[in-house]
This record gives sequence, C-alpha cells and structure tokens, in this order.
Amino acid sequence: MTPYEIIARKRDGQELSAEEIHYFVTSYLKGAVKDYQMSAFLMAVFLRGMTDREISALTRSYIESGKVIDLSDIPGKKVDKHSTGGVGDKVSILLAPLVASCGVPVPMISGRGLGHTGGTLDKLESIPGFQTRLSVDTFRQLLKKHGVAMIGQTEDIVPADKRIYALRDVTATVESIPLITASIMSKKIAEGIDGLVLDVKVGNGAFMQEMEQARALAGSLIRVGREFGKNVVVCLTNMDQPLGKKVGNWLEVEECLDGFHGKAPQDLMELTYRLAAHMLVLGGKAADLETAEEMCKAAIASGKAFQKFLEMARAQGADVSVLEKPETYPVARFRATLEARESGYVFRMQTREMGLAAVELGAGRLRAEDPVDAQAGIILFKKVGDSVEKGEPLLEIRTNKEAVIEQVFRRLKNAIVISGQIPKPQPLVLEEILS
Amino acid sequence: MTPYEIIARKRDGQELSAEEIHYFVTSYLKGAVKDYQMSAFLMAVFLRGMTDREISALTRSYIESGKVIDLSDIPGKKVDKHSTGGVGDKVSILLAPLVASCGVPVPMISGRGLGHTGGTLDKLESIPGFQTRLSVDTFRQLLKKHGVAMIGQTEDIVPADKRIYALRDVTATVESIPLITASIMSKKIAEGIDGLVLDVKVGNGAFMQEMEQARALAGSLIRVGREFGKNVVVCLTNMDQPLGKKVGNWLEVEECLDGFHGKAPQDLMELTYRLAAHMLVLGGKAADLETAEEMCKAAIASGKAFQKFLEMARAQGADVSVLEKPETYPVARFRATLEARESGYVFRMQTREMGLAAVELGAGRLRAEDPVDAQAGIILFKKVGDSVEKGEPLLEIRTNKEAVIEQVFRRLKNAIVISGQIPKPQPLVLEEILS
Repeated sequence: MTPYEIIARKRDGQELSAEEIHYFVTSYLKGAVKDYQMSAFLMAVFLRGMTDREISALTRSYIESGKVIDLSDIPGKKVDKHSTGGVGDKVSILLAPLVASCGVPVPMISGRGLGHTGGTLDKLESIPGFQTRLSVDTFRQLLKKHGVAMIGQTEDIVPADKRIYALRDVTATVESIPLITASIMSKKIAEGIDGLVLDVKVGNGAFMQEMEQARALAGSLIRVGREFGKNVVVCLTNMDQPLGKKVGNWLEVEECLDGFHGKAPQDLMELTYRLAAHMLVLGGKAADLETAEEMCKAAIASGKAFQKFLEMARAQGADVSVLEKPETYPVARFRATLEARESGYVFRMQTREMGLAAVELGAGRLRAEDPVDAQAGIILFKKVGDSVEKGEPLLEIRTNKEAVIEQVFRRLKNAIVISGQIPKPQPLVLEEILS
Repeated sequence: MTPYEIIARKRDGQELSAEEIHYFVTSYLKGAVKDYQMSAFLMAVFLRGMTDREISALTRSYIESGKVIDLSDIPGKKVDKHSTGGVGDKVSILLAPLVASCGVPVPMISGRGLGHTGGTLDKLESIPGFQTRLSVDTFRQLLKKHGVAMIGQTEDIVPADKRIYALRDVTATVESIPLITASIMSKKIAEGIDGLVLDVKVGNGAFMQEMEQARALAGSLIRVGREFGKNVVVCLTNMDQPLGKKVGNWLEVEECLDGFHGKAPQDLMELTYRLAAHMLVLGGKAADLETAEEMCKAAIASGKAFQKFLEMARAQGADVSVLEKPETYPVARFRATLEARESGYVFRMQTREMGLAAVELGAGRLRAEDPVDAQAGIILFKKVGDSVEKGEPLLEIRTNKEAVIEQVFRRLKNAIVISGQIPKPQPLVLEEILS
C-alpha cells in the first residue's frame, strides 16, 4: 500500500478499502503524502466518484484526524442544522435560539462567508462584542448552561477537512458529492450531535444548481448519517433569489431581530419554522411536524425565542443593547437606490451575482484573510413575482467604499430581470428527505 | 482566464484553447501555477483525455519552454528513433551508428532507466569514459563531424517536460496518451529532427500492455508529428519477453558488440534492421524498406557500422579498447545460474518482473538519485518457445550485491513459466503505421 497505488486505484475507478483511505488521509496530515498527490487524488475522486462505503470511510478518517466533542453529559438529544450556503441565508441566527428555547440543545459550529455566500460567523460578529472563537470547553459549558452556543471551527476539530478544503478550493475539486459529504458530516459528527437537519440549497444562488445533483448529495448525506447512527433530515430548498430581503452581515442580524418579533419576510419565517420543526422532532420534543411548527410559532409569539437569543448573545460577550434597539446601530456611509428601468414583474434574479455584489460592497471577502464590513449589504424592496412601476426603487445598497458603487450597480442592474410576464411561483421547500 | 478555470474546464471534459494550455504551462514554470494545481490538471487530462488540437498545443507549449536545436546547417534529413521502453531494449546503441554509417545523420537524445526498463544513457555510460552530459553546442559539432551523437537531456531543452514528468511519476498520471505524446514529441522535435521512427512496445514488459492502447498512442504520435511537419513512422513491437538475451548495462553493450559483428540474437538483429530501414527511407537514402534493409546488412557485414560506433564512442571520450576486446571488461563478483525445475518449453515470461529483477541486481535504480551498477544483469540461455530439460540452465544472474540473490531468484523462478505445450509463435513487429 503506497500513496501512488492508492491514487492509481481511484484513478482506475476501483473501490478503495477503509484502510487505504485512512492511510492516505493520515499520511497526508503527517506530510508523507504531498499536496500534489492529494490534489491528484481529489481530482480522481471528483471524476470517478466514491461508493457509500468509501464516503463513510473518508468521513471517519476526517473525524479521527481531530477531537470529537463529548456532549453526553448534556441531557437530551443534541440537534444541529447546516446549510450548504446561499445568499441572504440568515436562518441559523433565528433558528438556533428558537429551537433551544423549545428545549432541544443546539451545538452549532459555523463557517465564514465563502465565494458569493455569507457566513453565520461574520454575521454574528457584526454584533458588538459577540465572541465566536471559543474553546471546545467553553462551547460545552455554554451549551450546558444555555442550551445553545454558536462558535467557529476550532483547530482541533477535523483538521483534515481544514487542510483538504483549502486544497480543493484552488484545484477545482469543490463540487464533488463524496468530498462535500465527508466535509459536512465529519464536522457535524465531531460536534457531538445526535441529529442533524441539512438545508441543501438548489438554484442560481447555490453551489448545486440542479435538483438531480442536490438529490444525489442529499442521499449521500443521509446514508453517511445512518452509518454513524445519526438521524439526518435533508430539505432541498429554493435559492433562485436571496432569502428574506436583506443581504449583508448586520443587515441580516437586523432581519433576524424582525424575525424574533414575528415580522420578518414570509419566506424567511417559513423556512425557519420548517427547519426548526424538523429539529424539534429529531430532538424528541414534538411527535410530528405540525405540532413542532406550532411550538415554534408560540416561542416566537411569546418572546421566549428572542429571550434565548439575548441570553446566548450575552453569554458570548455581546453588548445586547443594540439587539434591543437596532436603530442605534451605525449605518454605512454610502447608500444608493436602484430604480426599475421599466414596469412589469420581477421575473428572475441572478442570485449568485447579487451575492457577489454584496461581497464587492464589503459584506464578504475575496481572499480568506480579508476583513468584512458589518454595515455593507443590500436591502431588497422587491422579490421575484412582485410588480414594479418604472422608477420605483428595486433595492438599496449600503457600503463604506464609494468607489465600488458604480460597478455594483452595473452588476445588479443585469442581475434583476423585469418582464411583462408573471413568473411561475415556485415552492420554497422543494423536497424533504428523511433517513 | 485563471488556473482554476482551466482546471475546471478540463475536469468538465471541455476542449481547452491553445492559449489556455500555453498560459497554464508557462504559469507553472513561472511558479504562478502550483504543483498541486498542475497535478489536479494532469489527473483531469488523464481521465478526460485531450483532442488532437489540445495535444498539439500542449506539445508546442512544452517545446517553447526551452531551446530548439537548429540543425539546418547539417546537410541531409536528420532522423531519430525513440522507444517507449522495454526490457533488454538496447536497439539504439546498435542502430544509431548503423544508420549514420549509411549516411543519415542521427541526433539522439536519450533517457535513463525508469521503473523496470533500462535506459540508453546508463548503458552507454558503462563504457569507460563515455560522456553523455554534453552541451547542445558540442552535440551539434559531434553530429556535424560524425553524423551521430548520443547524449542525455540537457536543462535547456523542454524544461517543462522535465518538471511535469517528475510530477506525473508520483501522482499516477504517467500512462496517459496525451501526456506521453507531448512528452515524447516535444523532446524529439526540439532536437531539430526531420523524421522520427517510434518503437511503441506492447506486452507484459511494456508500459502499454494492450494493442488497443498502443494503436491509440501511435495515432496520437503520428498526428502530432504531422502537425509539426515531421515524418513519423510507428512500429508496434512485441515486449512479451526481453529483447535479445542480455539485460543490464554493460551486458547490453556487449550484446550490441555481437550485433556489430552480425552475431547478436535474431530478434535483436531483426528489430534493429527494421527500424534502421525505416530511418533510411525517412532520411531519403533508400527508396524502399527492402533496399534499406540490404544497405543495413551490408554496413554490418563490412564493419562500417562498427567503425562508426567506435568513431562516435571515441569522439564522446570513451576508451574504445574495451569495445574491441570486451573480454577484458571486469565481471560482477557474484554469478549464479537458475536451472529449470522441469522439462518442457519456455511458455511465457513475466517480462516486467524480469526487468525488476535486473533493477534489484543493481542494473537499474529505485530512486532517481541512485547509482547503477554497470556489471549487474541477467543473461538468458532460453527464450520463449525454446525446449528445456529439467536441470538445464535457464539464465545466469550477475551482481555485486550478494544479499539480493535469493530474492531475485525467487522473483525469476515465478517469472518464467515452463509448460508441456509449445507456445504459439508471435511476430516481433506487430504493426507498422506510417504517417
């Protein structure tokens, strides 16, 4: 068994044994397999695929590269949610405290913005004082005390994924179902969860643009979950337009605050309730989805969910006054409005382009080491299907970089298609797959 | 156009433009494309293939990475021969002086042993004093004066291939027709040749084990040759047993000396005459293959070919006394004979295993930086189809490493299959493909 033989076997479409996969991954972490060998292997996996057994073995070797958090001393079933990434997808911030307020512990380890998509950590850090770089010990203590904690990846959890992900990012091997599955599932399993709800985004603002691909990924995620004894639910949800009406770090927190008061846009509330309901069922706190959704709505209406959010934010160091009075948050220096050039209906949005526009405004990063601007982003006044009059505002941009406004406007003008035709309404939750 | 996009396009099976290929290769040489990106690209090429246009563009970008030798001041058509590598394949040493003695200039740049196959340079260097590390200028002068020169790759000819080959060797991306084609053709075209005879080995001692693959490679080599205005002939030849009866550096020179005196084994002479005849036709010195073969036989019979060999060796610094009196060459310290365990016919040889046995004896290298032993090797007393009596010697091994003898014997015992059945005789030259 040499690294060369393992690459050659995968190249030739053969099934690797668990031992071979384990040997290859651990040799990589020890430096005996070089980056250029790993990238040849990753491309072979991309093009040849992996069987379920191989994907499970890869996931296991990722998990074993670091620590697994032991949450067994925390009572109840721990359930997390993960999204494959979209534009305006702020659900986690609303959902984690909501689910926790209904009695299901939510241990959530999130990522940063990537490409055209935003990241939960960047959004949380727009709240003054909010700490996401916490140790595993602190994470466990917070979870035990408050039933919810939201932190970033630590160095000691799944280091294999961290290194391999960086390599995939520069070798065009990101969009591979086996590699995505191992990356997501290893991190979630290492968190110490019992159940997991996965929101696989599909559409022009998602990494998966086709239902067929998304279904294949869903199946792979569920089968690996089963292999590790975790209950997994996958929701395939529409990402053909941004979720909600706000895109950008603080702007999305603001929209979540509206959500805690039951006033956020309908699509954001609908998706949050649905995903949260699955979590309550997985967590054993509701017998069925209808009951669970009612519990969630009640937790919002009573303010219990918002109180849990404040409790979590305070515990993680935040100055919660701004969460109680969001109107006091500083506003970006430059604001400009894009108006409709014709009357009709908003027919289509190039969601990926809108995400990239938000990045240009400062809300995201072009390179991993760039800072993000908490105030930058986009506020939509119209969504797909809405009627507009010529000259009516479509959206407002906010930025602290005056120089980018013109090019962002050009990008956004092309990204929103107005037509005389009413677009066919599309469901938000496209499919739900239970293990 | 970014490296990432180029990798992704090849990954998705798209045809790359000449500009994209040129950009990718030159960026690699400048360090802007990293090893791990090149290896992901190479694996994508391995699995997705390349069109003829892409292969030509890759070959061109290889050639343009270094110098092209200008041989236009040397009269006549310059013709070279290249073999894809086998066991006991010493043809070049016999053939280059032979063809030169018939009036066709032979500018030959060769390689070292690789894997289970021997390399012409290692063999030539077993002749005391023979220099193969010569500059391009010296190479040209020798060719002009003697009509033949045999040297190793220099740093300034096709540096792209040198670097990319090293990467392919450790990332399981060697056996790819587009990559093999670009590697061979770029080096030969950069030599300044007009015509080229390619000996593509097929069989259990070759890199290509199947006729189908070998034919595909042949077609690719010929089409690239045509694109660059070079006449190319490809011979597919049998490598299901070693060529001739000696394997090992000096042993193979010794067998070539027999060849210069017309006394080498029949298969070696047959192949040498056939390949040399093609070279004379390409070089415009004979109208057809029959005439050409007669010229070659006459050049051996008259001693003209041997005199050319001595002339070349002397010009490249060799002490030719040993070529005139090979019995004075020092013999390896350890010799041992493998005897047949049963009577019958030599039915099959695992040629690759025999090549690896020679490497173990010291004739080849396991790592690029290892030295080789000029004296080590194998002398066959029997070849496929020969009858043997139990206890009759099958072969003799020679080595200076006593410790390896036992394991080499074990390897060789398994590599030679004796049967009551006479094997079906196989032609040596399987197919010839002319451009």
